[in-house]
Amino acid sequence: MIDIEVLHRVANTLAERKAADPDSSYVSSLYAKGTDAICKKVAEESAETIMASKDGDLLHIVWEVTDLWFHTMILLAHHGLTVDDVLAEFRRREGVSGIDEKRSRSE
Amino acid sequence: MIDIEVLHRVANTLAERKAADPDSSYVSSLYAKGTDAICKKVAEESAETIMASKDGDLLHIVWEVTDLWFHTMILLAHHGLTVDDVLAEFRRREGVSGIDEKRSRSE
Amino acid sequence: MIDIEVLHRVANTLAERKAADPDSSYVSSLYAKGTDAICKKVAEESAETIMASKDGDLLHIVWEVTDLWFHTMILLAHHGLTVDDVLAEFRRREGVSGIDEKRSRSE
Amino acid sequence: MIDIEVLHRVANTLAERKAADPDSSYVSSLYAKGTDAICKKVAEESAETIMASKDGDLLHIVWEVTDLWFHTMILLAHHGLTVDDVLAEFRRREGVSGIDEKRSRSE
Repeated sequence: MIDIEVLHRVANTLAERKAADPDSSYVSSLYAKGTDAICKKVAEESAETIMASKDGDLLHIVWEVTDLWFHTMILLAHHGLTVDDVLAEFRRREGVSGIDEKRSRSE
Repeated sequence: MIDIEVLHRVANTLAERKAADPDSSYVSSLYAKGTDAICKKVAEESAETIMASKDGDLLHIVWEVTDLWFHTMILLAHHGLTVDDVLAEFRRREGVSGIDEKRSRSE
Repeated sequence: MIDIEVLHRVANTLAERKAADPDSSYVSSLYAKGTDAICKKVAEESAETIMASKDGDLLHIVWEVTDLWFHTMILLAHHGLTVDDVLAEFRRREGVSGIDEKRSRSE
Repeated sequence: MIDIEVLHRVANTLAERKAADPDSSYVSSLYAKGTDAICKKVAEESAETIMASKDGDLLHIVWEVTDLWFHTMILLAHHGLTVDDVLAEFRRREGVSGIDEKRSRSE
């Protein structure tokens, strides 16, 4: 079983970077650039995920999904949110009617 | 602390749906439609995440990021992959040079 | 030489649809749904263009680029703009330093 | 009336760049990077169009739609296609049942 707590460690690092010098790291510079720059990265990583999927390149798919999740976590932190808010939403959907049925309702 | 194991339960549900009747659920029907249909949903949820971020609507952001992660997990399952592959990649990056420094190298 | 005026005819149709009953056509219903619905279509058609390109399917690429341009023209009309504003911007770039050099500056 | 022929002049420039040294211009370097790099730019410009629309910034919308069309024209040229193929598809749709009705069928 993979140590799933890595997501919390990443979230903690991302939260710490919010107070850091914009020049001190990639993440700090992205916060400083603001919402549009972060959203643009989400769009890029989404497109790269799609292209990796079209290629059927498994290692590349994992790499790009990780990049996509990482940048959505930066987006969450930018808005004062965290991965726990997403996990809580997953749990809420489980509780309502099961994760899959939930989706069929909101499609 | 949020029960982070919800991601594994979701992944298990998504794996089970691969053997199910395409008409039996939203997820099963999406697998049956194939790669392009799943990728199109990833693109849609990415765009909705960006629009929610532009609106600064926190509840909407959490909802859309959850939808985006959910559909990337469907994409992973479609390719025989799982959330554990993404978590392992996050851990690998931690091990190399820290999650943030890692990114600055690959930007 | 293709009759390039088709873009003006499309733009005129899109402008007329703004005053029409939302139930009267696809375009009218999209205006009524508003900015997010139109933007979501732009994102979808962009993703489909990318997937057609990855497939190298020429007929599909032309189809999807046409869909993408069509929906950006709806977006323009939604904001009171038209294809002429885009053509004027292309001409402005030509005048500044040539269309390609222009891009290398703004990359 | 705007000189709509600017699109043909742009298409001609893009076609000429295919035989040029990759280092000689932005467009030539993009061809050399290949399909994924061009598709990634289409995804980026699509996201920027969406963000400009969310901001309701008219000048920015025109700028980004121009960038998006420009990069889809690079994508077309990369595949040996041109804006005339897109214009012909627009005309075909006009001829079938009118541009709008056409769309409602294929939604």
